[in-house]
Amino acid sequence: METQAEQDNILRGGQFLIKETACEDIFTPEDFSEEQKMMRDTVKDFIDREVWPNKEKFEKKDYAFTEEIMRKAGELGLLSIAVPEELGGMGMGFVSTMLVCDYISGATGSLATAFGAHTGIGTMPILLYGTEEQKKKYVPRLASGEWFGSYCLTEPGAGSDANSGKTKAVLSEDGKHYLISGQKMWISNAGFCNLMIVFARIEDDKYITGFIVEYDPDNGITLGEEEHKLGIRASSTRQVFFNDTKVPVENVLSERGDGFKIAMNALNIGRIKLAAACLDAQRRVITNSVKYANERVQFKTPIAQFGAIKSKLAEMAATMYAGESASYRAAKNIEDRIAIRQSQGNTHQEAELKGVEEYAIECSILKVAVSEDIQHCTDEGIQIFGGMGFSEDTPMEAAWRDARISRIYEGTNEINRMLTVGMLVKKAMKGHVDLLTPAKNVADELMGIPSFDTPDYSQLFSEEKEMIGKLKKVFLMVAGSAVQKYGPALEEHQQLLMAAADILIEIYMAESVILRTEKLAKRDGEDKADTQIAMARLYLYNAVDIITQKGKEGIASFAEGDEQRMMLMGLKRFTKYTNLPNVVALREKIADKVIAENEYCF
Amino acid sequence: METQAEQDNILRGGQFLIKETACEDIFTPEDFSEEQKMMRDTVKDFIDREVWPNKEKFEKKDYAFTEEIMRKAGELGLLSIAVPEELGGMGMGFVSTMLVCDYISGATGSLATAFGAHTGIGTMPILLYGTEEQKKKYVPRLASGEWFGSYCLTEPGAGSDANSGKTKAVLSEDGKHYLISGQKMWISNAGFCNLMIVFARIEDDKYITGFIVEYDPDNGITLGEEEHKLGIRASSTRQVFFNDTKVPVENVLSERGDGFKIAMNALNIGRIKLAAACLDAQRRVITNSVKYANERVQFKTPIAQFGAIKSKLAEMAATMYAGESASYRAAKNIEDRIAIRQSQGNTHQEAELKGVEEYAIECSILKVAVSEDIQHCTDEGIQIFGGMGFSEDTPMEAAWRDARISRIYEGTNEINRMLTVGMLVKKAMKGHVDLLTPAKNVADELMGIPSFDTPDYSQLFSEEKEMIGKLKKVFLMVAGSAVQKYGPALEEHQQLLMAAADILIEIYMAESVILRTEKLAKRDGEDKADTQIAMARLYLYNAVDIITQKGKEGIASFAEGDEQRMMLMGLKRFTKYTNLPNVVALREKIADKVIAENEYCF
Ligand SMILES: Cc1cc2nc3c(=O)[nH]c(=O)nc-3n(C[C@H](O)[C@H](O)[C@H](O)COP(=O)(O)OP(=O)(O)OC[C@H]3O[C@@H](n4cnc5c(N)ncnc54)[C@H](O)[C@@H]3O)c2cc1C
Ligand SMILES: Cc1cc2nc3c(=O)[nH]c(=O)nc-3n(C[C@H](O)[C@H](O)[C@H](O)COP(=O)(O)OP(=O)(O)OC[C@H]3O[C@@H](n4cnc5c(N)ncnc54)[C@H](O)[C@@H]3O)c2cc1C
Repeated sequence: METQAEQDNILRGGQFLIKETACEDIFTPEDFSEEQKMMRDTVKDFIDREVWPNKEKFEKKDYAFTEEIMRKAGELGLLSIAVPEELGGMGMGFVSTMLVCDYISGATGSLATAFGAHTGIGTMPILLYGTEEQKKKYVPRLASGEWFGSYCLTEPGAGSDANSGKTKAVLSEDGKHYLISGQKMWISNAGFCNLMIVFARIEDDKYITGFIVEYDPDNGITLGEEEHKLGIRASSTRQVFFNDTKVPVENVLSERGDGFKIAMNALNIGRIKLAAACLDAQRRVITNSVKYANERVQFKTPIAQFGAIKSKLAEMAATMYAGESASYRAAKNIEDRIAIRQSQGNTHQEAELKGVEEYAIECSILKVAVSEDIQHCTDEGIQIFGGMGFSEDTPMEAAWRDARISRIYEGTNEINRMLTVGMLVKKAMKGHVDLLTPAKNVADELMGIPSFDTPDYSQLFSEEKEMIGKLKKVFLMVAGSAVQKYGPALEEHQQLLMAAADILIEIYMAESVILRTEKLAKRDGEDKADTQIAMARLYLYNAVDIITQKGKEGIASFAEGDEQRMMLMGLKRFTKYTNLPNVVALREKIADKVIAENEYCF
Repeated sequence: METQAEQDNILRGGQFLIKETACEDIFTPEDFSEEQKMMRDTVKDFIDREVWPNKEKFEKKDYAFTEEIMRKAGELGLLSIAVPEELGGMGMGFVSTMLVCDYISGATGSLATAFGAHTGIGTMPILLYGTEEQKKKYVPRLASGEWFGSYCLTEPGAGSDANSGKTKAVLSEDGKHYLISGQKMWISNAGFCNLMIVFARIEDDKYITGFIVEYDPDNGITLGEEEHKLGIRASSTRQVFFNDTKVPVENVLSERGDGFKIAMNALNIGRIKLAAACLDAQRRVITNSVKYANERVQFKTPIAQFGAIKSKLAEMAATMYAGESASYRAAKNIEDRIAIRQSQGNTHQEAELKGVEEYAIECSILKVAVSEDIQHCTDEGIQIFGGMGFSEDTPMEAAWRDARISRIYEGTNEINRMLTVGMLVKKAMKGHVDLLTPAKNVADELMGIPSFDTPDYSQLFSEEKEMIGKLKKVFLMVAGSAVQKYGPALEEHQQLLMAAADILIEIYMAESVILRTEKLAKRDGEDKADTQIAMARLYLYNAVDIITQKGKEGIASFAEGDEQRMMLMGLKRFTKYTNLPNVVALREKIADKVIAENEYCF
């Protein structure tokens, strides 16, 4: 068992903003265990063999094929990673769960969505909130792929405002079952699921309630036609109509009125897994792009040799690398937090619930960052392919279309942006994360005279780590003043919240990529890690630009006169490089490596 | 006839960078003549009646329907706007031509492409380079829509490197015709065209030659299957195979070896028209987005009232407005330049050719800027629609897919970016645009002490116009030093070129939007133009951010030590606002107007 001191090294959710993290204290993809690497290779192999060669089927809306692949994934045990052994699962930790989400999603968003809807929001609510009976009855079937699950929350009038649904659950006269009636929309896996997690309102309850509903067409459940969608074409998405559907009272999830909480917690886990589910798709886009760029000759030159193309490859690789770094860092935090909770006597269920909830901020950050990175990455992939990128004969356009959904579901990126800052402010109010003291320190620092000492930057990343520290000050300065100014009304200032969220997101991503690389360089030496060092520097450089922009926008929106001048000066100080990196050279370096290896090779 | 002095007020191509333009000297959409407005309404009406209600047909790849609509457009005279009256056309000026491209493209990229390929690259080469006989024989049929044209330049191995095609033209023994053999790819309108502009190489000529080829399946011409594409689904795109296709020698366009020149000049016109062809699509996306946002209620609030949505609507409107401003400004410059050339004794043909060539830089700028704006606009459109944006039942996803092609064809945006700067540097070398003197002046200014006078900003846009002047200095400083440093080898430094191109693009767009709005405010008063003023300010603000970023990147890539420090200081000075705009408030203002009008209303 860990000592309290060891436990304290694990940051609490949101604390990354106010504490410095040592690179030894984060988990990185370089730290995968042998078991994890084997798992990764198994999944990759499955995708290479069964899925990638059949990509066309997914684009042709072959829903049955999606189901078939899901069934095969079940046979391989891939649907049961997160399920405890006593419920027929593999009982692996959160990092391994993420790893499987990551690699199983490489070939098509259709499978990523089917997998995510089933193993995530379709199964987790029972795992996290189910009674022993419910778990025993349903989880083993879901874990094996004998049954598939879906999650029915959204309604025509209730999307982002998930608690506003009109679906009703009425207790029968004998008190033995509920009768559910209502219309659900956009339900992934609806076309082939056996079990539905359904949210409905009992009487005039403030909050909705969750139910486990077995799919039975003779029990008042009707499915709409398949929706025709921009992307993830072979992911089944239908409306579901409930008309006095009988559900035994034993199938209520947790307590009456707990539905909204269940829904939100299921989404927290869903969000970080969604980030993972964008990663391997990006790796493959980068690898296919560099292969094409190495082969395609124009002006007697492989286009990979043109600076315009190198620039794209480098940016694609650097954001990919950052996305990986942050995703697995947060995943391990969650895993550790669960272990701590368990060691403190929590049940596995409680521990998992609280462990993920703790990092809800990081989950939202990752959802937004990685879903936007993959959009950009696939967009550049198309551009590198030129006219061929516009053709269904190359894998770029489907990747671009598939990526688009990730910015919409599991909470839109707008909702998630606002959540990141909103949750942080709430944590501060509750005293879980002390933002006020550091915010005050920054304010004091602004009034003081800056130090003109020439700092010692001889150590790897010393300037970069100092910069991360300064960027945190930018957030504390902007968000701190905003909270002071607007108090709880801050939530009405959405443009400001969005700007603050972008600052927060970039800090987390940039810090993660620097720490991962520092750890790597300490292990392998700086020479061997030189491309990774370049990627970390490039990512940070871009982050500084975004933070400068968003900081300025935020400041100008609420501060005037002297206050504005002082804060702008602070912004300048906190975003200033002593040694401005030559990003053109960094990109060249990164691209040259990717080009030489002919793949994303980190 | 204009006097020399009047003519001199019309900027030469690229001169916008070194001369100040008075708002009275630019043409704006507010200056459309009654005839032009009638034309616009005719086209809009045609689209509303015949095309928009049938959008689904385009998405279902109904190529025949595209042809039918093109035929109807021909009946309305819309294919003949740019064609002189003596050749059966309407003989209207360049602005009117742009106007028709703009509004005919509002509903679907499939029609935009078919229209552009036919009236632009399919017809213009004959109009611009054809002999009297060629013109008389072919142009009237193309202008009426009796025949349709296509343009066969690209080959599997020759895309961006258009002159590298392998298609051969061999003179027959009797010297009466050429036999053309080769494979062309990505040919728009191939499926229903009667005439093809084909580029092929005679013997081992350095440059390809253009030919007018009548489509005849019995003359060795075979078509590939329709390509399956990401977007513009009902635009016919096929491979075309020529196998000893007999073409009479009279059908050579211009001289042997002129093909590359013809191809490039056709593309120049094509590029600015492509910018126009993105405009009405954007207007409609904005209007549909605001209508949806006003109707859709979440959290008991129309989502249009959320700052996150307002921010999007405002940015969409401001870039739209800027795109219009710059497109019509350049269009009128071209029209005027043609008139001047004609008044100087050029034939209409020569005048048009030279008129467009003169503004090749602006044409590339517009192509890049507007094609990227529409991508961003449609992307936000999807996001505003939430889950519904991902559905084929709403008009957002097709708009997003259709927009994607505009960044690829008519020269990829990478090629066009490099062209903007490359052409400017060439013009400077030839003495057509004096960049050296102003670049030297900026360098001198950097050595001097900046003025600390408080400037008088009481006039509308006085600070903004000063900012435009300073942004020009950024370009001169960065590009000037880069040219000095690298000389002709600059073209190998593509990342730097791309950064310089972005600076140039933003300057042109921002200046155009400021000047248009100044002209409007002078006419209608500042009160009535208040939203437009906000849009101009917002656009400029964003431009300053981009220029700051790209300038910094460029400088760090080639300057070190003191030189770098001096240039960074210059950059800071040249991008500094005295009064930092509150962009959050600007966006609120713009959004509120669009929301109140329930449409893009400028
Ligand atoms: C392919 C697909 C699969 C899906 N699968 C499932 C599933 O399996 N189960 C399920 O229950 N649901 C599913 N969904 C639904 C998905 O979760 C919702 O689409 C999403 O939550 C957004 O809700 P909405 O579509 O109603 O958009 P809206 O909530 O109407 O949002 C529209 C726009 O308004 C913005 N907005 C909304 N509220 C605010 C606010 N307060 N402040 C600022 N901006 C705001 C949004 O960010 C968005 O830009 C799926 C959707 C799709 C498209
Ligand atoms: C739907 C569609 C319709 C089309 N219609 C027509 C038509 O009607 N007639 C016709 O002739 N053609 C047509 N085209 C072809 C189009 O013009 C080409 O696709 C385009 O010019 C790009 O060429 P490419 O596809 O060979 O890409 P490539 O030239 O191979 O470019 C691939 C990538 O390399 C980059 N690149 C290439 N050269 C350089 C360089 N020197 N420096 C830096 N980067 C470079 C490009 O920017 C791009 O990112 C069409 C294409 C499509 C997809």
